[in-house]
Amino acid sequence: MIATTDFKSVIDQYQVIFFDSFGVIKNYKGLVPGIENTFAYLEEQQKDYYIVTNDASRSPLQLAHSFNKLGLDHITPDKVISSGMLAKEYLDLKVNDGIVAFLGTPDSAHYLDSSGLHVLPLSAINDDNISQVNALVFMDDEGFDWFQDLNKAVNLLRKRSIPAIVANADDAYPISKQDVSIAIGALAGMIERITGKKFIRFGKPDSQMFTFAYELVRQSRSSVNKKDILMVGDTLHTDILGGNKFGLDTVLVFTGNTLHHDAETHINATGILPTHICESAVV
Amino acid sequence: MIATTDFKSVIDQYQVIFFDSFGVIKNYKGLVPGIENTFAYLEEQQKDYYIVTNDASRSPLQLAHSFNKLGLDHITPDKVISSGMLAKEYLDLKVNDGIVAFLGTPDSAHYLDSSGLHVLPLSAINDDNISQVNALVFMDDEGFDWFQDLNKAVNLLRKRSIPAIVANADDAYPISKQDVSIAIGALAGMIERITGKKFIRFGKPDSQMFTFAYELVRQSRSSVNKKDILMVGDTLHTDILGGNKFGLDTVLVFTGNTLHHDAETHINATGILPTHICESAVV
Amino acid sequence: MIATTDFKSVIDQYQVIFFDSFGVIKNYKGLVPGIENTFAYLEEQQKDYYIVTNDASRSPLQLAHSFNKLGLDHITPDKVISSGMLAKEYLDLKVNDGIVAFLGTPDSAHYLDSSGLHVLPLSAINDDNISQVNALVFMDDEGFDWFQDLNKAVNLLRKRSIPAIVANADDAYPISKQDVSIAIGALAGMIERITGKKFIRFGKPDSQMFTFAYELVRQSRSSVNKKDILMVGDTLHTDILGGNKFGLDTVLVFTGNTLHHDAETHINATGILPTHICESAVV
Amino acid sequence: MIATTDFKSVIDQYQVIFFDSFGVIKNYKGLVPGIENTFAYLEEQQKDYYIVTNDASRSPLQLAHSFNKLGLDHITPDKVISSGMLAKEYLDLKVNDGIVAFLGTPDSAHYLDSSGLHVLPLSAINDDNISQVNALVFMDDEGFDWFQDLNKAVNLLRKRSIPAIVANADDAYPISKQDVSIAIGALAGMIERITGKKFIRFGKPDSQMFTFAYELVRQSRSSVNKKDILMVGDTLHTDILGGNKFGLDTVLVFTGNTLHHDAETHINATGILPTHICESAVV
Repeated sequence: MIATTDFKSVIDQYQVIFFDSFGVIKNYKGLVPGIENTFAYLEEQQKDYYIVTNDASRSPLQLAHSFNKLGLDHITPDKVISSGMLAKEYLDLKVNDGIVAFLGTPDSAHYLDSSGLHVLPLSAINDDNISQVNALVFMDDEGFDWFQDLNKAVNLLRKRSIPAIVANADDAYPISKQDVSIAIGALAGMIERITGKKFIRFGKPDSQMFTFAYELVRQSRSSVNKKDILMVGDTLHTDILGGNKFGLDTVLVFTGNTLHHDAETHINATGILPTHICESAVV
Repeated sequence: MIATTDFKSVIDQYQVIFFDSFGVIKNYKGLVPGIENTFAYLEEQQKDYYIVTNDASRSPLQLAHSFNKLGLDHITPDKVISSGMLAKEYLDLKVNDGIVAFLGTPDSAHYLDSSGLHVLPLSAINDDNISQVNALVFMDDEGFDWFQDLNKAVNLLRKRSIPAIVANADDAYPISKQDVSIAIGALAGMIERITGKKFIRFGKPDSQMFTFAYELVRQSRSSVNKKDILMVGDTLHTDILGGNKFGLDTVLVFTGNTLHHDAETHINATGILPTHICESAVV
Repeated sequence: MIATTDFKSVIDQYQVIFFDSFGVIKNYKGLVPGIENTFAYLEEQQKDYYIVTNDASRSPLQLAHSFNKLGLDHITPDKVISSGMLAKEYLDLKVNDGIVAFLGTPDSAHYLDSSGLHVLPLSAINDDNISQVNALVFMDDEGFDWFQDLNKAVNLLRKRSIPAIVANADDAYPISKQDVSIAIGALAGMIERITGKKFIRFGKPDSQMFTFAYELVRQSRSSVNKKDILMVGDTLHTDILGGNKFGLDTVLVFTGNTLHHDAETHINATGILPTHICESAVV
Repeated sequence: MIATTDFKSVIDQYQVIFFDSFGVIKNYKGLVPGIENTFAYLEEQQKDYYIVTNDASRSPLQLAHSFNKLGLDHITPDKVISSGMLAKEYLDLKVNDGIVAFLGTPDSAHYLDSSGLHVLPLSAINDDNISQVNALVFMDDEGFDWFQDLNKAVNLLRKRSIPAIVANADDAYPISKQDVSIAIGALAGMIERITGKKFIRFGKPDSQMFTFAYELVRQSRSSVNKKDILMVGDTLHTDILGGNKFGLDTVLVFTGNTLHHDAETHINATGILPTHICESAVV
């Protein structure tokens, strides 16, 4: 098995740490045991940190609250950067009026709502209002009827030339030790292939997530550059690939998607090379 | 617009005609008007014909009955070759015991059943019987709960190294003048990508469909060869591509997926070239 | 490591054996040591056998001669089924006149030539004769200038709506213990993506290869059915997948592309399941 | 045909203009006639502008000189942002020592050289120095032997787990009114599929190109935001898709890859929607 390093010795080399959420800080059972020590240590060392997550099911405020409830008091909404924020920014910049239809939970709707557009679940689109729909956003795999609404999404995109935005590029996510659930990224990918349209995808490994976080860092610590930032992730194809491409050092941990005994095979097969390898993000 | 030929003058050049079903003989509204004349003409001319369809939702017996009810009395079950028959042949040859789980309607189940295996809807698979499942068959997009059972399909294939068979390779099919419905081929494709497994696909353009029909032809007309057979279809990527590859002459008709005013663009863009082009399969 | 069975005990269960060539009978160093015993045993037992290969660089006659020179005297040209034969059959059935341009060695040209068409290397196509080109065939990765002729292939397919046929679907093949060479399948795939055209691919795993071999078997042994035939291969994605799909039992051997210590991982990752697993095809 | 707007009336709405190079400013014949007026107008109006190009064959200095030679005197090296700059930044940040092997012209080599690494053409890699190679960069389709070096690239990536960087994501580029040439993006894509590795791609539509340009803009005009910037391009899949995703307004012009009579079909088929449509970028 591939050798690992002590996580504390790794983060001591950086001024700012970006954390993936699911598989690094928490998993389907709750917090990764001991992870609270990591955040206490970061606060004590006055290192800056951000949660950079492909979870678009809730707003940064709601995501921060969920961390607080689990006992991670330091994680404030301004520390959370989600792919949903990029979807929202896109709508703010590019869609000026009309209806934004979405697939996802009401929580994700509420979050997009603040952009001033008329945000409606896809199920509320009908012959009367379809001509006003100016964007379709794939937010989350829950909150809608797959049969009804995935078919509806295909037909909406056949009838209207509008941008389709995918706020979470993941294909699947773990829901128990044994089982995964299909994520909205895979559902959107299927519809992209059926319709032949080109969707706009946010979320790691896309670099816009990292640009967003990097700009926040530079606002408070203008001397920091990419060499000073570490990305911590459990997934080679999103966290590590995206972090590497953006020019950050990266660390792969084994508390989520990648298992220690598979890691070497996967790294060699994909050529996605983390800078460091640690058992977990616990100090 | 691309020029068309008279269908009767085309079929007069061949001894055996293969017809796609949906978009050629019938559509969402019923029979293509006048198509009964084509079959009367074929009977009168003593030309042989077969329906070669990717519709695996029902058995050839049921498919033939549905044609009979619409007034096409000559189409007997032995004239119908469906991709479901290939799935059934695969199970007969390659899966010797245990459970075959399927996604689709009870009609498709009933049809597979005759193979002597224990055929169960995927929804009936649980922790007690999962270890006996020796194949998963994607038959039809109806008859199951997409959210529950597509997630279940992903997890079954993660836990068990078993063949996954797709009895209908289509991505979508028309359900009205304006709307299409996602077909089981697209749903299976999504799960293939999520799991990384390699699925076994039957149905046009795969040549096994044509081999199956060709062997039937040769049993009754041993002197016929591929030069004597014409494939009639409405879809470039399945009917025409598959027919061409098998070595048959092909004719594209405009009563289904391909519209007359788009045809030239699509033919040039894909390089899939029908031998003939006709408005419809009506004589 | 996954358990293996004795090859002799496996073939004793079948009447007809299909062998892949490269990685099973021979490799970059010559014959697989001891493989001559296998063919002696098959002759002695009066079992039928065929070489089913994606090698389209030479005709069956030339391929048989190359086996003979290596000491396998029993392998006659009628025992060799190559994907090039399917390309040739396609041209015979579907291309009636004009020029067939090809990428490959003169040996592959010579082989296509017998179809009576005007067969020219792509390098001989120019402004004067381009309008007569009615097909482009990708035969082999050698015998042409990659820079000149791959660019020429792209532009030919942009200017002329003609079928493009790929006689070897492989992506790469081993040329030494350490190194592989890019095969024509990968080069053709690149051009398919650039042009957006849909190419016609022959060669395993496509079932037309197996249909061709099966029909030959049935001509001499009409009582044989698919249950009586074993496919022997070193590659999961071509030999094993194709054999399985056609309804044959399959055996994976470790003298070529798949290594014993990787086999279990690859089988589980792909879900391509050989019926048997043996160290080699040597009895 | 889709309606167009006057280009001057479009740029009057923005403070900063990003131009694609090939197909917008110049083409295979030289400058787009009249384009010099556009730059004179921009200077006169004191609007800022940048050339944002996927051309990694030469450095910004060399690219600017080539514009100067054609008569566009205002285009200085600091106005040119190429995907090669991102490849160089990646190497600076992520590859600390050893050899960087590249495929491309010596000009592209010279350009990477400044990063202090040991930059060698792939043809200079052999058994003695292969263990020191820490990155492979695909810069340009010229300057190497396709047969020798594409095969060498496959084998290098099989032997060494190193990052592979693609400095130009394009598949093909026009070289005359009739003909295109295969670009390094397509060659790299073929090798990515053969090896199964995940390559790092820079160049439009990837947002890192736009981030790079945007940061330059903000250094000189800190009040400018994304709403004030227009991206001008001839290609839906790179310029328009990338600009849209980054949150910029976009304009499609017909002097390059997209033709006026095809535009509506392509826009509807892909769902990639330019904000404006103009015949050319000439005022």
